[in-house]
Amino acid sequence: MERRSTDLRPADVATPADDTVEGVGELATLARILPRLPHGDDTLVGPGDDAAVVAAPDARFVVTTDLMVHGPDFRRAWSTSHDLGWKAAASNLSDVAAMGARPTALVVALAVPGDTPVTELEAFADGLREGCAVMAPGAGVVGGDLSVSPTFTVAVTAFGDLEGRQPVRRDGARPGDVVAVSGALGRSARGLDLLFRLGVDHEGTPDAPAATALRDRDADVGWHLAPTPPVADGRSAALAGATAMLDLSDGLALDAGRVARASGVVVELSAAALGDDPRLALSGGEDHSLFATFPPDVALPGGFRAVGTVRDTAGGAPRVTVDGSEIDGAGGWDPYRLWSGAQG
Amino acid sequence: MERRSTDLRPADVATPADDTVEGVGELATLARILPRLPHGDDTLVGPGDDAAVVAAPDARFVVTTDLMVHGPDFRRAWSTSHDLGWKAAASNLSDVAAMGARPTALVVALAVPGDTPVTELEAFADGLREGCAVMAPGAGVVGGDLSVSPTFTVAVTAFGDLEGRQPVRRDGARPGDVVAVSGALGRSARGLDLLFRLGVDHEGTPDAPAATALRDRDADVGWHLAPTPPVADGRSAALAGATAMLDLSDGLALDAGRVARASGVVVELSAAALGDDPRLALSGGEDHSLFATFPPDVALPGGFRAVGTVRDTAGGAPRVTVDGSEIDGAGGWDPYRLWSGAQG
Repeated sequence: MERRSTDLRPADVATPADDTVEGVGELATLARILPRLPHGDDTLVGPGDDAAVVAAPDARFVVTTDLMVHGPDFRRAWSTSHDLGWKAAASNLSDVAAMGARPTALVVALAVPGDTPVTELEAFADGLREGCAVMAPGAGVVGGDLSVSPTFTVAVTAFGDLEGRQPVRRDGARPGDVVAVSGALGRSARGLDLLFRLGVDHEGTPDAPAATALRDRDADVGWHLAPTPPVADGRSAALAGATAMLDLSDGLALDAGRVARASGVVVELSAAALGDDPRLALSGGEDHSLFATFPPDVALPGGFRAVGTVRDTAGGAPRVTVDGSEIDGAGGWDPYRLWSGAQG
Repeated sequence: MERRSTDLRPADVATPADDTVEGVGELATLARILPRLPHGDDTLVGPGDDAAVVAAPDARFVVTTDLMVHGPDFRRAWSTSHDLGWKAAASNLSDVAAMGARPTALVVALAVPGDTPVTELEAFADGLREGCAVMAPGAGVVGGDLSVSPTFTVAVTAFGDLEGRQPVRRDGARPGDVVAVSGALGRSARGLDLLFRLGVDHEGTPDAPAATALRDRDADVGWHLAPTPPVADGRSAALAGATAMLDLSDGLALDAGRVARASGVVVELSAAALGDDPRLALSGGEDHSLFATFPPDVALPGGFRAVGTVRDTAGGAPRVTVDGSEIDGAGGWDPYRLWSGAQG
C-alpha cells in the first residue's frame, strides 16, 4: 500500500545540527527510516528479526542484486537522495520484470559517510517507497542493513514471483520472432549528456544548482536521475508469450547482442523504429526499458512496439544489424568512466 | 557440491603486472570469479541472466542481508580476501540459521578499488565457497554484482528454506524455558583484542606480518577473522521445538536483552555456564553463535548447552540477569569504533 511521504514527514521541524548518522546512531536512524519503507503484500515476516520471510507462491523466487556506488554510478551534486532511492528501486525492479516476474520484495543495504544527515536517508527511503508504489505496487522492503563508509554505497536485492510461468531468459529468441521494446531509448543518456555539458560550474565541476535549473528545463535530466521503467510490462510480456527478454541497462546495441549470442540468432533492427536519434537509442544505457522477442502472431502487450525481426544466422555468427548493416555492440555503457572523487 | 580451491586454481601461473580489476575489466574478472563460486542444490537459474531463480519448496523463503565495509567491519592488514569471503558467508548463513531455516542460496555484491588484484577476488570467492561447503553444504551463489569503489565493500544477501516450519523468532521465549547457546562465546572478541594489542607495528598500526604470526600462535585470532558458527544447529533447534532464537552478533548481554524485551520475559543466565571469562562471553560479539530458548522437557540438540532459564518478569521490566544480578546490555559491539582510514 502506498503511503505518501507527506503523511509521514513532520512539517517544518527544526533539525538539530548533529542530526547525522554518526550523531544519531544506527538504531535511532533505522527507527526513523523503517516507517517510511513500503510494506509488501507478500511479506510474511518483515524487518526486525535476524531475517525476513517472504511468500513464494509457486515455490520459486526470482532474485537480482545491484550496487550503486558514488563515483562510478552517481554524483551527489546531481542526484538527490530521493533520486537514489527511486533509481535503486527502478534498476532492480526492471531486472525482476525482465524475467517475466511480478516484483514482490526488496532488501536494501546502505553504507554512508558518518556525517550524512539522517534526513538524507529519510529522503532515500521516500524515493524508494514512491518508486515502488509507481513501478511495482504491492512490493515491499523486508529488510536491510546500515553501515558507515567513506563511500556512499547502495546495495539492493529484489525478488519476484513467476506466478507459475517459466522465466523469460535471453536464449529463447527464434527466427521469425518480432523484436520489440517497451520504454524509452536513449533518454537517460541524453539527460546525462546535458548534465555533463550544462550541469556544471564554469570549471566543469558538477554543480547542484546548475543541475537543478537544468532539470527544471528538460525532463530527460530528471529521467536520467530517476527513471521510471515499464516494470509491469515484464509480466505482460511473459503472459503474451515472449520468447526472450532483458532489461536495457547497457544500451540497445550491446543488450541486443547478448540476446543474439545467447539465442544463436541475428537481431535485425530498423533505424526508423528507433526514434529521432537512432545512434543515441543504440548506445545509450540506463533507461532500464525492456527488450523482448515475441512470436510473429502475438499482439504486442502494454507499451511494447516493434523495432525489428529475429533472423537465422544462415551459418554466420550471431549478430545485431541496423537496416541490414552489422553494428558493433562492444564497449558498453560506462557513463562515469572519467569520474574522479574530486568531481562531485 | 564442494569443489576444493586447489581443483580450480592454476598452479604457479605468472600473474601479469596489470592483473587488477581495472586492468582486466568487469566481464573478464567475473569470468574468473564465477567458476569458483558454489553451485547450489536449490538453484533453478544461476548467474548470467537479468536475475536468478531459486527453489522455495514450502512457498516461502527466508532472506537476510549484511554489509561488510573496510574500516567499520574489517582491516585489510588483518583479514585476507579468503577470510572476507568466509566471514561474509558465516555472518549471513548464521542469520538464516537463526530463523530455523536451511540455507539455500546467496547473492554477493562486491565493490572494490580498481587496483585490487583479480587474484584477491578469486581468493574471496574461494573463501566464500569453502565457507559454504563447511557451514551450509548445498547452498550456492546464484548471482552478484561487481563495481569499482574507493572503499572495499561486501554486500551479501542469503536465503533459506523453512521446510514447512514456522520461523523461530525472538518473541517466543516463555517462563520456564531453558536458555541455551550453541557455539563460541567471546572467542572472536578475544581474537580481536589480541590483534589490537599484538597484530600491530611499533607505532600501533595494524600490520599484516604481525597478524599472520599471531594467527599461527593463537587460534582465536583466526576465529575472529573467519569464524565457523554452528549453522546446521539452527535447523536442529527448530526441529527440537525452540521457542525463540537469534544469532549472537552483538554479544550475549545485548542479544539476550533483545529476546527478553521481544518476549516480555527475564533471561536468567548462570555465570558458571559462561566459561572461564563470563565478562568476555557477555560482551564479545561476532561469534555468530546461536542463542535459543527451549521448553524445559526438550533434549538440547546439536551443540546447544544450557546457560540459564527464562523467568516471568513478575510485573517488572524485561531484563537479563547473571547469577541474579541485572546486567546492562546497552552499548553494543562496535569493535572498529576508533578506526581511521590510515590504520590498515
